[in-house]
Amino acid sequence: MLNHSEIDGILRALVEPTRRQILERLSSGPATVSQLAEPFGMTFAAVLQHLQALEACGLIRSEKIGRVRTCRIEPGGLAPLADWIAERRLPVERHLDRLGQILAETENQDQKKDEPQ
Amino acid sequence: MLNHSEIDGILRALVEPTRRQILERLSSGPATVSQLAEPFGMTFAAVLQHLQALEACGLIRSEKIGRVRTCRIEPGGLAPLADWIAERRLPVERHLDRLGQILAETENQDQKKDEPQ
Repeated sequence: MLNHSEIDGILRALVEPTRRQILERLSSGPATVSQLAEPFGMTFAAVLQHLQALEACGLIRSEKIGRVRTCRIEPGGLAPLADWIAERRLPVERHLDRLGQILAETENQDQKKDEPQ
Repeated sequence: MLNHSEIDGILRALVEPTRRQILERLSSGPATVSQLAEPFGMTFAAVLQHLQALEACGLIRSEKIGRVRTCRIEPGGLAPLADWIAERRLPVERHLDRLGQILAETENQDQKKDEPQ
């Protein structure tokens, strides 16, 4: 079963473009908070707030060694949202499959009608 | 290439729980605005506003015949978001594959060390 509050948390995190860009950066490998703050021209505090939002909903995890906090993607963190999307797409795809079958059957019947008696 | 403003629009639409519930309802088949408004205890005007948000970003489409507007899922509407998620997950999965190979190789080497000389 899908956890709706989980999906809610993920969507609230992703709706902010900076947080999506942070995820895009982290999907190519781990980075420190300073490394993440630099390209966005953001303060350390501002990027830390975004990272906390991403970590709270399980999209990233971070580890602090000494004074340096390193962040990385949480594998499977986007899975609940991917599953929700898959559930929304499948019934429609099934409807399209069924429509395709009906059209194919209709075409076969039309061909039979056109065949010389 | 992924269209970032497209993903932005989809996420802004999905972040509202009522709009996700409308999509869930529509993924089992088309429905009129009145049919959609009823289970949510919402006014016709309120549900219409949510439907406009879903239609603007290509997640649903609607058709008005006479006084009745019928809504249905737009096939492929969620595809840009699904693609974005797939792009975020793949590099991590690749990293995990590589880690799995390294662990397997290390295990092989350890086994060789343990073999009687």
